[in-house]
Amino acid sequence: MLYGIVVFPEKHVQDNANNWRRRHDPHYSAIPAHLTIREEEEWNDDELQLAVAHLERVTSAIPAFSIYFNRVSTFYPVNHVLYLALQDTASMQKLHEDVCSGPLTIETPKYVFTPHLTIGQQLSADELHDLYGNLRMQSIDFSSKIDRVHLLYQTDNGSWTAYQSFLLRG
Amino acid sequence: MLYGIVVFPEKHVQDNANNWRRRHDPHYSAIPAHLTIREEEEWNDDELQLAVAHLERVTSAIPAFSIYFNRVSTFYPVNHVLYLALQDTASMQKLHEDVCSGPLTIETPKYVFTPHLTIGQQLSADELHDLYGNLRMQSIDFSSKIDRVHLLYQTDNGSWTAYQSFLLRG
Repeated sequence: MLYGIVVFPEKHVQDNANNWRRRHDPHYSAIPAHLTIREEEEWNDDELQLAVAHLERVTSAIPAFSIYFNRVSTFYPVNHVLYLALQDTASMQKLHEDVCSGPLTIETPKYVFTPHLTIGQQLSADELHDLYGNLRMQSIDFSSKIDRVHLLYQTDNGSWTAYQSFLLRG
Repeated sequence: MLYGIVVFPEKHVQDNANNWRRRHDPHYSAIPAHLTIREEEEWNDDELQLAVAHLERVTSAIPAFSIYFNRVSTFYPVNHVLYLALQDTASMQKLHEDVCSGPLTIETPKYVFTPHLTIGQQLSADELHDLYGNLRMQSIDFSSKIDRVHLLYQTDNGSWTAYQSFLLRG
């Protein structure tokens, strides 16, 4: 089964992000607005049990923190993605590193981890540039507490279901 | 904020249910296939904290169990809903009663609790009868382990986000 690990920002950030996601993100209805901590991976039941035990362990030592979105950015030209970006990525970097350690180490990462909340993807270059030009001018000012991570699995229709939450108890 | 409590059956049940939900359930993209334990209710932060503490407490005493879906049924004429029904509802009834106690007591229930996995709703009477007539003839034979409940909240677009999971640890 495919499992992924995310954090959901607070509802007010999701509601704002959804105004863009609705029109520009084909994954809009597959998963609520989120920041990915660990990309999807196929796990068997043993790997799932190891992952759950690992997540219990690492999250018990991580304190809750706040994030602040201050701008829209893009992964263009590598990916035609627009996202809400963080002013300071240190806490999310640390969370990613702690989660992706031990049995959840990523052997050959496809990308450098960049915390992001996707608001548009699979856009044509023209659409992306239009939208990015527009959104760069807007003042982005959302903060959210992050006090838990969620382990999700994917059903055959591409949607994600919650499997387990792990509170940051450090 | 609106909070609700559900269980998600195992993926193979969701995948099967989604074949019907996709076409017949307007909530298909708002929430994965689920069984509602407690209907949505508006809670403030204090009520949320009380609910979380209550859920921690009651789930620690409930053992995991299995459910077996053996037929399609309907709430017609009260509601134009088609659902996967359970052969034996006792464990789900008990879960519902334990969850909906203490601070989560439902003072004036709108319905008698009937564990169900909705596969169609808001159908016209004609559609419902056609589909029900068809599905009653099909052999339904899905079982699922239930070992956790999920507390969800609703964003403004009507979708549900996972807030916290509670393992049945009894």
